[in-house]
Amino acid sequence: MASVVGEEVSNKQVIFKDYFTGFPKESDMYLTTSTIKLKVPEGSNGVLLKNLYLSCDPVMRILMQRVVPKGFSNYTPGSPINGYGVAKVLDSGHPDFKAGDLVWGSARWEEYSLITATEGLRKITHSDVPLSYYTGLLGMPGMTAYAGFHEVCSPKKGEYVFVSAASGAVGQLVGQFAKLLGCYVVGSAGSKEKVDLLKNKFGFDDAFNYKEEHDLDAALKRYFPEGIDIYFENVGGETLDAVLLNMRDHGRIAVCGMISQYNLDQPEGVKNLMCLIYKRIHMTGFTVRDYYHLYPKFLDTVLPYIKEGKIAYVEDIAEGPESGPAALVGLFSGRNIGKQVVVIARE
Amino acid sequence: MASVVGEEVSNKQVIFKDYFTGFPKESDMYLTTSTIKLKVPEGSNGVLLKNLYLSCDPVMRILMQRVVPKGFSNYTPGSPINGYGVAKVLDSGHPDFKAGDLVWGSARWEEYSLITATEGLRKITHSDVPLSYYTGLLGMPGMTAYAGFHEVCSPKKGEYVFVSAASGAVGQLVGQFAKLLGCYVVGSAGSKEKVDLLKNKFGFDDAFNYKEEHDLDAALKRYFPEGIDIYFENVGGETLDAVLLNMRDHGRIAVCGMISQYNLDQPEGVKNLMCLIYKRIHMTGFTVRDYYHLYPKFLDTVLPYIKEGKIAYVEDIAEGPESGPAALVGLFSGRNIGKQVVVIARE
Repeated sequence: MASVVGEEVSNKQVIFKDYFTGFPKESDMYLTTSTIKLKVPEGSNGVLLKNLYLSCDPVMRILMQRVVPKGFSNYTPGSPINGYGVAKVLDSGHPDFKAGDLVWGSARWEEYSLITATEGLRKITHSDVPLSYYTGLLGMPGMTAYAGFHEVCSPKKGEYVFVSAASGAVGQLVGQFAKLLGCYVVGSAGSKEKVDLLKNKFGFDDAFNYKEEHDLDAALKRYFPEGIDIYFENVGGETLDAVLLNMRDHGRIAVCGMISQYNLDQPEGVKNLMCLIYKRIHMTGFTVRDYYHLYPKFLDTVLPYIKEGKIAYVEDIAEGPESGPAALVGLFSGRNIGKQVVVIARE
Repeated sequence: MASVVGEEVSNKQVIFKDYFTGFPKESDMYLTTSTIKLKVPEGSNGVLLKNLYLSCDPVMRILMQRVVPKGFSNYTPGSPINGYGVAKVLDSGHPDFKAGDLVWGSARWEEYSLITATEGLRKITHSDVPLSYYTGLLGMPGMTAYAGFHEVCSPKKGEYVFVSAASGAVGQLVGQFAKLLGCYVVGSAGSKEKVDLLKNKFGFDDAFNYKEEHDLDAALKRYFPEGIDIYFENVGGETLDAVLLNMRDHGRIAVCGMISQYNLDQPEGVKNLMCLIYKRIHMTGFTVRDYYHLYPKFLDTVLPYIKEGKIAYVEDIAEGPESGPAALVGLFSGRNIGKQVVVIARE
């Protein structure tokens, strides 16, 4: 459906209702329809975007809290939620962007957006891949997996790597980057279907369903009789506690996320931190924001992998803004298989 | 009292009774007197030592458990406990040692020892300092403070440094190394007397008695309104949780010990690990064993500091093997002021 610049059109939006504690529910958001003129106002250096793909990321849960960590901006009740997305420029008052450009970066959950903070946008220079990949494999999660594994974990060929939430947007890539380097990789996920994906689609050496393991320590001892050199942490809580017991000397833990903790009023306590001492473990929290200077190098590495079929990427596609709240909420029950994307429009 | 080589003499020993859980008690050890011939047996390449100073270190508690972490050897019930010490060689079957040499390193808690595992001993080449310093300032704790601060914390001039158990064998030195580098240093300890030492003897910028702070988070916010760049972790548990809330972005935590946890059947859970992500914190466990290659450099650095009066060191001296069990147990109630040493003989 062509969008005519200058036209006033209806604009479906996903609105954040109000701050809450506990698990997010679909009813914490609601849909509304406003109107928007598809033109950048006179004198503005913003851009008018048609949103194509919106990204569901666990970090968005944190922005739904009244109090957020320093450096984060929580959502405004009554306004559209925001996150990462892929969009097409319909009109531009900014010299770096012109109509027809494809961009990825900060996006609002609505069909069309007037964006004045264009520093959050990057032009898409390679469009010979699925554009939705810029919410995942070629966007924030991909960059997170790349920097987290290669820059934070100091991996070496032959090392034993464990990835939790391994079929997720980030985890599936960490495992594949580790395999490409020659590591032994095991992943955990929350269903048989995801475990099958890890083993059969992403080439993990092994994988298990953590929901079927009553004793995570015993499970890890079974999958890593020699112990774990690198743990890519996506979940936190009792998984981290079990991993600490199974790390090898001089192991590394890259702390990327702790999705099991985001909905708890009081996080679970992690008891086995003394292992950090005995085993001389490096545990490093990181955020992708510190690594975007590596994005060109990342693209140079990953684009050939995609074209040569050396990297697979699985997306879970929800259709239309109406499906957005359920898609986002589903991250926290593990409903999604792979990267959760919401399609707003395909072009 | 001269010890005559070849003579058979009585030998007081501090014997480990049996494995236990919970806080150590004096009754977990007992004194006995055996006899020993002050001569290395024919054909042995061991050394016969007269013990001078024995070191009380928190890690010794861990060796009193039935199950110990990999890489540790627990005590044998009915045998003398062991740890670090300073001794004089009375007789030697080893080419590297001769009668009259002073050594420091692995020692058994007794008056005289026949040591065959001489790889745990280092010759003392500088004896123009108090010999007891080789249990502390110039021994394992000193090396721990030096490596932990300079190698693990990547400190920079002007950074904000917090040290817990700050008047202890390691803490008092970490603070002084940090001051020598030009950092702002605050320490916590468990009594007014210790806090006074920190401020008046060791030159910490500030110090507080953690037992008088009902809200450690609030205390840290008071002492570090700008946050903490470096935390030298000696205690674990709720102190660590409060520190995590007060770390600055890109902060570093060197995990040296967690003395608050050693006597608990189940360690306390640490809840605020998500701060590792938000603040991109490096948390690194280390043991001094990985850093002894730096010992010559350490001596070259620290010996001049001692002679120029730039470093102070406070020891808590207990007299005689009879006082050993109480001295060791006292570490866990904070009875000691400074490095706890047991004198067996002064020469």
